[in-house]
Amino acid sequence: MTDLEIAKQVDMRPIWDIAKRVNIPEDAIEPYGKYKAKIDPTKIKGKTNLGKVILVTAISPTPAGEGKSTVTVGLADALTQLNKNTIIALREPSLGPVMGIKGGATGGGYAQVVPMEDINLHFTGDIHAITTANNALSAFIDNHIHRGNDLRIDPRRITWKRVLDMNDRALRQVTVGLGGPAQGVPREDGFDITVASEIMAIFCLAKDLSDLKERLSRIVIGYTYDKEPVTVRDLGVEGALTLLLKEAFKPNLVQTIEGTPALIHGGPFANIAHGCNSLVATNMARNLADYVVTEAGFGSDLGAEKFMNIKARQGAFSPEAVVVVATVRALKMHGGISRDDLKTENEEAVLSGLVNLAKHIETVRTFGVEPVVSINRFITDTKAEIETILTWCQQHNVRVAVTDVWENGGAGGLALAKEVLKVVEKENNFAYLYDEEESVRTKIGKIVQQVYGGKDVIFTDEAMRDLQMIEQNGWDMLPICMAKTQYSFSDDPKILGRPEAFTITIRKIMPKLGAGFLVCLTGDIMTMPGLPAQPAALNMDVDHKGNAIGLI
Amino acid sequence: MTDLEIAKQVDMRPIWDIAKRVNIPEDAIEPYGKYKAKIDPTKIKGKTNLGKVILVTAISPTPAGEGKSTVTVGLADALTQLNKNTIIALREPSLGPVMGIKGGATGGGYAQVVPMEDINLHFTGDIHAITTANNALSAFIDNHIHRGNDLRIDPRRITWKRVLDMNDRALRQVTVGLGGPAQGVPREDGFDITVASEIMAIFCLAKDLSDLKERLSRIVIGYTYDKEPVTVRDLGVEGALTLLLKEAFKPNLVQTIEGTPALIHGGPFANIAHGCNSLVATNMARNLADYVVTEAGFGSDLGAEKFMNIKARQGAFSPEAVVVVATVRALKMHGGISRDDLKTENEEAVLSGLVNLAKHIETVRTFGVEPVVSINRFITDTKAEIETILTWCQQHNVRVAVTDVWENGGAGGLALAKEVLKVVEKENNFAYLYDEEESVRTKIGKIVQQVYGGKDVIFTDEAMRDLQMIEQNGWDMLPICMAKTQYSFSDDPKILGRPEAFTITIRKIMPKLGAGFLVCLTGDIMTMPGLPAQPAALNMDVDHKGNAIGLI
Repeated sequence: MTDLEIAKQVDMRPIWDIAKRVNIPEDAIEPYGKYKAKIDPTKIKGKTNLGKVILVTAISPTPAGEGKSTVTVGLADALTQLNKNTIIALREPSLGPVMGIKGGATGGGYAQVVPMEDINLHFTGDIHAITTANNALSAFIDNHIHRGNDLRIDPRRITWKRVLDMNDRALRQVTVGLGGPAQGVPREDGFDITVASEIMAIFCLAKDLSDLKERLSRIVIGYTYDKEPVTVRDLGVEGALTLLLKEAFKPNLVQTIEGTPALIHGGPFANIAHGCNSLVATNMARNLADYVVTEAGFGSDLGAEKFMNIKARQGAFSPEAVVVVATVRALKMHGGISRDDLKTENEEAVLSGLVNLAKHIETVRTFGVEPVVSINRFITDTKAEIETILTWCQQHNVRVAVTDVWENGGAGGLALAKEVLKVVEKENNFAYLYDEEESVRTKIGKIVQQVYGGKDVIFTDEAMRDLQMIEQNGWDMLPICMAKTQYSFSDDPKILGRPEAFTITIRKIMPKLGAGFLVCLTGDIMTMPGLPAQPAALNMDVDHKGNAIGLI
Repeated sequence: MTDLEIAKQVDMRPIWDIAKRVNIPEDAIEPYGKYKAKIDPTKIKGKTNLGKVILVTAISPTPAGEGKSTVTVGLADALTQLNKNTIIALREPSLGPVMGIKGGATGGGYAQVVPMEDINLHFTGDIHAITTANNALSAFIDNHIHRGNDLRIDPRRITWKRVLDMNDRALRQVTVGLGGPAQGVPREDGFDITVASEIMAIFCLAKDLSDLKERLSRIVIGYTYDKEPVTVRDLGVEGALTLLLKEAFKPNLVQTIEGTPALIHGGPFANIAHGCNSLVATNMARNLADYVVTEAGFGSDLGAEKFMNIKARQGAFSPEAVVVVATVRALKMHGGISRDDLKTENEEAVLSGLVNLAKHIETVRTFGVEPVVSINRFITDTKAEIETILTWCQQHNVRVAVTDVWENGGAGGLALAKEVLKVVEKENNFAYLYDEEESVRTKIGKIVQQVYGGKDVIFTDEAMRDLQMIEQNGWDMLPICMAKTQYSFSDDPKILGRPEAFTITIRKIMPKLGAGFLVCLTGDIMTMPGLPAQPAALNMDVDHKGNAIGLI
């Protein structure tokens, strides 16, 4: 059975019943259909004992897939089975990749959040609201220039790009404003995918509506002819942008197949942006339940690092436990095996690939938190291969559990849940990797050396100019949001396993004043994906009863 | 008080109670918050006596405003007060104009549909779904060309444009696919506003989901190097597009300030497209209530003509009564008075301007339906001015009623409602203006002469070539969707009143196979509006309680 078929068989509980499980007051619930609701954060009473955050991260992803969302869902269902009052906090899927390659992003098998087809399509429209706010800002900018350009915005130095929630390579580089004086001022522009927008990052880091508005007003959209920054506040449209986002800003409640409540809200990319669900959803989750299982994008070098240094810092909380998801298949790829040969048993390759897991474990420990490895079992895995990982973990004093939540739901995650609970009950020594006051170079250096295991950092001439400009404007006190390939610790996606003594090249540094971080681009980071030769969309349809077909 | 302030004071009834008033079964209701719901058309039982349709149209619009939506809402509330089982069917507002000039589009004063701020902002996301489907198709087209172009699509002859629900002139003419081989194939493109998309027209004319899919598959996206049409079916993505639209396709239920149920669904422009709410909402409305009050965009020369010849034909129904909204102010502008001088009493100007109303009355009668004039009173109107119109109507044997629904809600529409009921009770002789089988030239000629009161039709060379191509492909049996300025019967927006003996120039004919009509462009029709020097957005904000400010 496909994930969609499993999801369709579920006898979902009305969203009101799910809300009751975590004592959400009735007047906070705004239903969207029968199985989704927006929850008004201003109507949730604060707890004195805030819920403990369990972060799920992974080894460096490979095309073989690691199933991080699946483990997140399965772990929460397992905790629920152990009578722990648990809630999930996850990101919203972007439609672009759903139409393109990967189908859904809501877990898999019997460890899914439902209704999966709604969540994977338009859901409650949050990402559309962000697209609208982003593009309204672009329209206001171009209108300002067209109407005489009082602010003296240099059309060559506009850094604000348009967005669509679509995989559409033809929009990466465009020229707009063509066709003569009535059609605006011609200039170069480009579209990013919406989840790469600074507004998405702001949406996911703002504490409340007034913080949202304040952050929106700080966005730098470009520079004047005198190279002075121009902000949204200068344009006077932060109120309109906030208005466009105010309903979307309420977290969305859904359920797992087993009925565990899940808040799904916000979804920035983890390579170009910080890769975690909204802070407002995480804060709400901590106010509603004793355990909050959440996820950060890609491996611990990207999502988890940013979770710690950006989100946890801005939200003033810390995770009590970190789960690192690994699979036999992915480890074999890190051990040098090609995707076609993954079905052949190969303990040696698993052992070689464990260097990648080892580095991720080190990284988590760098933050003062004890990791728990989750071996997410696939049917092709052999006993000997699993045994190889277990033995290695024992030898290296690493907590580990085998999970088969895809097949068995929460029951397949009980061993992991028990290990996690042991860690949560202990005190940890959580610490950020760097202080915000340190220099930009120092902050980047610490990430490269301590998180990636690299040796040096090189700045291109362009990055040097960016850095100078950032220092001149006094923006150097912000945390770093590294934009790096997810496939390697280095900036070369082809180098798997655990590269050493490598150099990271910083090509560009982009100040994101609203989000409150500096994006450092390394290598070629795609901010607008393309569609494959055979897009997933070709298999999608609606049956005669109005049901989705072909979402996977 | 502003419309928003009035709307916020309303003690709205839960949407479940509104649904009960027209016997919507519980399992058909999908709430979106407490005061909006999507209604599943497959769960509504058909009535044997279908509701009677009352169409509200207007004289040629002027910047002074005629208040057509306001009269539509007020008339429905008045019918409800007269114990008639009534429902409203209206278009969804487009966000672009809301941010730009006009603020809301949900009626005004005490004749509004609520919650006005939700309806005017993202509502239930229908327009976003249409934007997404439209742009997904563009991405599929460009991806097909990028991946080798098996269909031999000529990049110079792609007629499918991208869209945004935004007033953004800088996107009218763009080049996409720049930046080298990895970024797609460069070509000229442009963005329309979403409500001008053929998908919006299809959405509003499809009978059910399978008709929607069939129509989507027929869309012609452009031509091959051999000038053969390329359709969505050739690309194989009609299933994916239908999937993206399937939830949006369910009509939305809201309420008026007085609690009359209103279905608000779909919103094509009335100049470039056909300008009425969805057929699925109108059909649902007829199944739910005895009286359906609905509206068509702009004056009777545009919205009403298309309502009759396109929508009513495709839906196999006819309106039982037509209300023509006129105001003293607008008539004075048609009588030659400038906007600044409207406050001065001027019976002569009113009398001169009545030529415009006269032509709209003739047009309605051409379709075999008896019109009722609604004089929508403004505070600046004098008794003598109103009297001038009433006398003229008496002299010309035209039914008329003065309405002040803005100030008094349904009570201000009782006289109009009584006149309308008299017309509804009589048999009418409804007839289309032309048969679909007639030649394109004949069909256009009939519209120009009988609806606009013009003399001749001229085709540009380009339009002649279009016509030839349309005939070669056998598409000439489709009805006509004229794209003409709303301000004049002619194709020159500056000629108000009742121009005579004028010539209409057809500049271009665009086949819309999915919508099932031929768009004939006359004059400069804007398919992507721009923002004014001081956009409405500058006054928008959110207060500390999360309430909207500045929507007007």
